[in-house]
Amino acid sequence: MEYTLGELAALLGGRLQGPADLKIQGIAAIDRATPRDITFITQKRFARLAAQSQAAAFIVGPDQAQLPRPLIIVEQPYLAYARAAALFAPPLSRWPGVSPLAFLGREVELGQDVSIAPLAYIGNGVRLGDRVTIMPGCVLQDRVQIGADSLLYPHVTILERCLVGQRAIIHSGAVIGSDGFGFVPGKEGHTKIPQLGIVVIEDDVEIGANCTIDRGALGETRIGRGVKMDNLVHLAHNVTVGEHSFLVAQVGVAGSTKLGKGVALGGQAGVAGHIELGDGVQVAAQSGVSHSIPPGQTVSWTPARPHMESLRIVNLLSKLPEIHQKLKDLEKRVSELAATTVEEPRE
Amino acid sequence: MEYTLGELAALLGGRLQGPADLKIQGIAAIDRATPRDITFITQKRFARLAAQSQAAAFIVGPDQAQLPRPLIIVEQPYLAYARAAALFAPPLSRWPGVSPLAFLGREVELGQDVSIAPLAYIGNGVRLGDRVTIMPGCVLQDRVQIGADSLLYPHVTILERCLVGQRAIIHSGAVIGSDGFGFVPGKEGHTKIPQLGIVVIEDDVEIGANCTIDRGALGETRIGRGVKMDNLVHLAHNVTVGEHSFLVAQVGVAGSTKLGKGVALGGQAGVAGHIELGDGVQVAAQSGVSHSIPPGQTVSWTPARPHMESLRIVNLLSKLPEIHQKLKDLEKRVSELAATTVEEPRE
Amino acid sequence: MEYTLGELAALLGGRLQGPADLKIQGIAAIDRATPRDITFITQKRFARLAAQSQAAAFIVGPDQAQLPRPLIIVEQPYLAYARAAALFAPPLSRWPGVSPLAFLGREVELGQDVSIAPLAYIGNGVRLGDRVTIMPGCVLQDRVQIGADSLLYPHVTILERCLVGQRAIIHSGAVIGSDGFGFVPGKEGHTKIPQLGIVVIEDDVEIGANCTIDRGALGETRIGRGVKMDNLVHLAHNVTVGEHSFLVAQVGVAGSTKLGKGVALGGQAGVAGHIELGDGVQVAAQSGVSHSIPPGQTVSWTPARPHMESLRIVNLLSKLPEIHQKLKDLEKRVSELAATTVEEPRE
Repeated sequence: MEYTLGELAALLGGRLQGPADLKIQGIAAIDRATPRDITFITQKRFARLAAQSQAAAFIVGPDQAQLPRPLIIVEQPYLAYARAAALFAPPLSRWPGVSPLAFLGREVELGQDVSIAPLAYIGNGVRLGDRVTIMPGCVLQDRVQIGADSLLYPHVTILERCLVGQRAIIHSGAVIGSDGFGFVPGKEGHTKIPQLGIVVIEDDVEIGANCTIDRGALGETRIGRGVKMDNLVHLAHNVTVGEHSFLVAQVGVAGSTKLGKGVALGGQAGVAGHIELGDGVQVAAQSGVSHSIPPGQTVSWTPARPHMESLRIVNLLSKLPEIHQKLKDLEKRVSELAATTVEEPRE
Repeated sequence: MEYTLGELAALLGGRLQGPADLKIQGIAAIDRATPRDITFITQKRFARLAAQSQAAAFIVGPDQAQLPRPLIIVEQPYLAYARAAALFAPPLSRWPGVSPLAFLGREVELGQDVSIAPLAYIGNGVRLGDRVTIMPGCVLQDRVQIGADSLLYPHVTILERCLVGQRAIIHSGAVIGSDGFGFVPGKEGHTKIPQLGIVVIEDDVEIGANCTIDRGALGETRIGRGVKMDNLVHLAHNVTVGEHSFLVAQVGVAGSTKLGKGVALGGQAGVAGHIELGDGVQVAAQSGVSHSIPPGQTVSWTPARPHMESLRIVNLLSKLPEIHQKLKDLEKRVSELAATTVEEPRE
Repeated sequence: MEYTLGELAALLGGRLQGPADLKIQGIAAIDRATPRDITFITQKRFARLAAQSQAAAFIVGPDQAQLPRPLIIVEQPYLAYARAAALFAPPLSRWPGVSPLAFLGREVELGQDVSIAPLAYIGNGVRLGDRVTIMPGCVLQDRVQIGADSLLYPHVTILERCLVGQRAIIHSGAVIGSDGFGFVPGKEGHTKIPQLGIVVIEDDVEIGANCTIDRGALGETRIGRGVKMDNLVHLAHNVTVGEHSFLVAQVGVAGSTKLGKGVALGGQAGVAGHIELGDGVQVAAQSGVSHSIPPGQTVSWTPARPHMESLRIVNLLSKLPEIHQKLKDLEKRVSELAATTVEEPRE
């Protein structure tokens, strides 16, 4: 892949400052770029690395326009970097058509230009939209449906009847539609509650490697439009994740909990079952959320509290030895003081 | 699937209150049920939703017998719901017999009516009991044994010589019998301790998606009868899990630890190695247990303490800013007080 | 497998004390050994079990040389146990050569004595070194390279262009080279940043079951020589793990963080992104590390602090109810004291 700097400026909608015919063959971080690469400055603290960088050119914001190097000046350098990375990304290696080494069940419906790699299993009644890509080792059980332009990396498992929208990206080892963890406790052991529901994944969702999303006990587990999930996230049965929420790695959400729109859960955070996190709630990494949180609030720690309160408490914990000592000193001082004071007669 | 209300009442062992010939075609939650569905009230707080529900009929306890709707009255509505869900569950879609697209090694022994789907791998000397179901993409290494009526969802891996009992349900992506994490530290790096043991899974166990259960270093890792494990749980080498224990998602248990019978570990809880949790111990979500816990105790927080103590401490943490302020006020007050008191001569 | 005690002593470089011709057929833990097994005492607290043990012989350190049983006396009994376990380990069951039921792409390069099992997928341009073992169900995407003597257990996924060194052991379900979790937030949702980098795994690395290691956004995610990772560990894009580091199960490390050499992360620990943990840093289980840590330090708790400080605080937390009560008592006492003191006139 090769572009001229002028072409790149046009493709990124940026202002060119430098030679339009400069050839760019790749994109790299500022400290690793070679003279064939373009790089980018998304934060001021990286600007100091520019002088030493061997990069051929820089994508920068207006505040770096004085940099004496070939530049593409854009309003949002981070977004322009994402777009430039897409331009230099190697083309997706996908199997041309349906491999004879894949297994296809009965009554499978395939859209235009579907790719099914060897060693994939496509159950009965599965429907795949146009340009869907199924990589090797995927298993789609009966009656799964996947929308157009979705991409399943190797070893994705989608269990019966689950629905995936358009433009989904599902990473390797993810399991969609496993049974929810539902049992009736009893003296003779736990009785399994059959999990009859499904998982519904709306459009533009990305699901990380080795995530697990359980089907509803009844009804649905639903992942809203534009949700992004990192690796090893667990969503229990009947969870609802609102649009554009953002779940970092190793998060766990217990059953029937409802996350609003634009919720952000930090890595390893845990959310209890049957609660509701309002739109825009932010949960810090490793927090444990056991109660519903109103919209817009940021919480942290275990058990999770408003972030400012957590900070105050965590800060005071450092002073706990000092507090303990001061209390002991004060007790002693009061005892001494009491001894010096003539006690007033009771009557 | 369709039953009359009278048939359902008989199958659930409940008392019919309403038209015996009412046709029921499904089961659904109270707020989602259609006029073709039966629903259920397992907790009083849901009873208020009954008036608005479109359900054809209700499974209720004796305390809801006055509800003016078609009813099946049972002693344990939650258990009756589980049984009704089983009645309405779609039949398991399993491959009829052994697929020619599965790989079978030498000296494989298959019971009656075994199902092995395409793209499954069955190693040498594997023994599968009657009615075992192996879904697509499973890998059973040499000499694995699986008891009758067990069900392996797609992409389950069972490593060499591990043993699974009867009526097990193992969800997708679970790995049974990976090497334990055993190394001898040294100046030149860590020397691997070969992991020679196995995993033994007793009868009636359910194992969640993408769980990992390591084989014993020597001897066994053992999962007791009736244990239920949620998704993404990690059990290290030589762990023993007592009968009917209940491990919620993302739990981790370190090596050689022994969980008694009926132990419950909340989501994301961690248990240190070489300790023992007595029968009936309950560990709250996200707790970190580093010491043995006597039978029957409930612990929480990190490091885990008796739950009542944790509650008291967590509650006082909220007051820490206030405690800190009061201490400062008191110091000031004592200083002022001391200044007003004529010091007694030392002698 | 059978050795005489004399052969074992020679193979382990130990001193024989007892009959050289004693036949040993296995190795087992001290409380489980049969008269055909050798066992070992690696810690003094296990020595008391020796009298009851049925073991034929013992591997011990010089401090146990008085034990009146057949002995192999070594300087490091734990290391000798690891070596003995290797002697008694059953031979690895590997497919002889390349199975015709595996899929091989174009321009695949195979070293001497490579093993590729049925139902494995080897993409275009993959290069496998001598004696590499690929177990059933593995997927290696295009241009992956794997060094000599490496072993991939079933269902390992290695995505495009990632590099694995020599003598690697990768356990089932691990995913190497999934996309990093990189998005540009925006009003219309998150824009994906294409992840163009790779994962580089150096020599002698072991990676646990169902781990996920993301490829670099640009550049590399790098796992240093001799690193050992337990199950279900997550490493984000552009993480660097220094040589011989040791990551216990369910650890998560966020993007661009750099772990030094010999770093040890306890189970379920979480490390924030863009920080650095110096050589030899130790992080206790479940800790949350949000700042860089200087070399050699041991930290614990969330948020992580120097371990001694955490211990002091955690200890004082137990006293928090008492501290709270004492403060209230003291306030009352001071009030009483003030009442008994005649206030000095202000002027």
